Amino acid sequence: MSAKAISTATADRRQAQLEALIAAAEKRICDSGMHSLKARDLAADIGVALGGLYNIVQDIDALLLLVSSRTLARLGEAAQTATAHLPVSTRAEAIDRLVMVAQTYLTFARENLPLWRMIFELRLDSPLPDWAAQDQLRLFRHIAEPLHAIMPELDTVALTVRARTLFAAVHGIISIGLEERLIAVPAQKLSDEIAWLVRSACRAHA
Amino acid sequence: MSAKAISTATADRRQAQLEALIAAAEKRICDSGMHSLKARDLAADIGVALGGLYNIVQDIDALLLLVSSRTLARLGEAAQTATAHLPVSTRAEAIDRLVMVAQTYLTFARENLPLWRMIFELRLDSPLPDWAAQDQLRLFRHIAEPLHAIMPELDTVALTVRARTLFAAVHGIISIGLEERLIAVPAQKLSDEIAWLVRSACRAHA
Repeated sequence: MSAKAISTATADRRQAQLEALIAAAEKRICDSGMHSLKARDLAADIGVALGGLYNIVQDIDALLLLVSSRTLARLGEAAQTATAHLPVSTRAEAIDRLVMVAQTYLTFARENLPLWRMIFELRLDSPLPDWAAQDQLRLFRHIAEPLHAIMPELDTVALTVRARTLFAAVHGIISIGLEERLIAVPAQKLSDEIAWLVRSACRAHA
Repeated sequence: MSAKAISTATADRRQAQLEALIAAAEKRICDSGMHSLKARDLAADIGVALGGLYNIVQDIDALLLLVSSRTLARLGEAAQTATAHLPVSTRAEAIDRLVMVAQTYLTFARENLPLWRMIFELRLDSPLPDWAAQDQLRLFRHIAEPLHAIMPELDTVALTVRARTLFAAVHGIISIGLEERLIAVPAQKLSDEIAWLVRSACRAHA
């Protein structure tokens, strides 16, 4: 083999190991939560020595960021599939699409509960790398696009703030709801109440 | 001393120890968070042996519940002082009062950040005792009272759900906002955005 072929093979093997490691971390987070994740277990899962693990990722924080990034990418795909084809030509259509974005978020959170929780529980020792920040910010276009059609008078800064307000409000309802806390909106009412809130926020603005 | 006087003195001493213990736990939670709380440190703080601590409270979970209960009581007092005197005779007045309830919650969360966070981070091994459940549910009257004036057609069940929806929405905005996450509503916009959301939710309903 040429030097180039060898280096491509090495890169492929590294990539395959990284994918296996992310998959192993996802499985363990789903089974027993983020806080019980141990490097030693993950190394055993993918059949490398503990030292070998740190040739694949720098540390557990770096791995958790990759897991979080993959979850966010899947959330983005879910939003894209469920809502991007919906029209925003009229105000009513844009409101319907925004409600669908919120309900897609609820469904995703329900179906990916441990991985979804992890994104918000993650506390890093170092600042969020730029690519990870972009992963999060990019998702807001699913809110900002219909919102711009609903509130066309808002400038870019005001629209960004408003998108964050609506996101955090819906996230709060889902987050307390799916934890099934005493004070939660009952699970079977979550979808209706989220739709009510989003529609109210949009309608009052007219 | 009579037997009764002795038993009163003992009860008083126990109560004083319990108060000191709660105060010590509050201080440690404010300084370094709930998760680093250790029975040994708390025993040293109030000058009892480790075994003596468990004569005062059953375990650390029981102590955390008492701390949480005290925080909720202070939140209730803050809501009472800031909003209970505001009229709800007209719909506009009731909306103003509800906005004030939400903003009082924001101020309280800001000024009591570690103790406020603790209430939501607390995961108990055993079910929530009834008195602690009542502590939480009782606070909802600060929302339900003005909300009833704003949405008089809702029956008790629907009003309870709606109060929880609004609470969770406002809580979500504050919670993500005060964590200063990348995707948060900026701190200086929190009060305005919360007011916008509450007013929108109420106005659209008319």
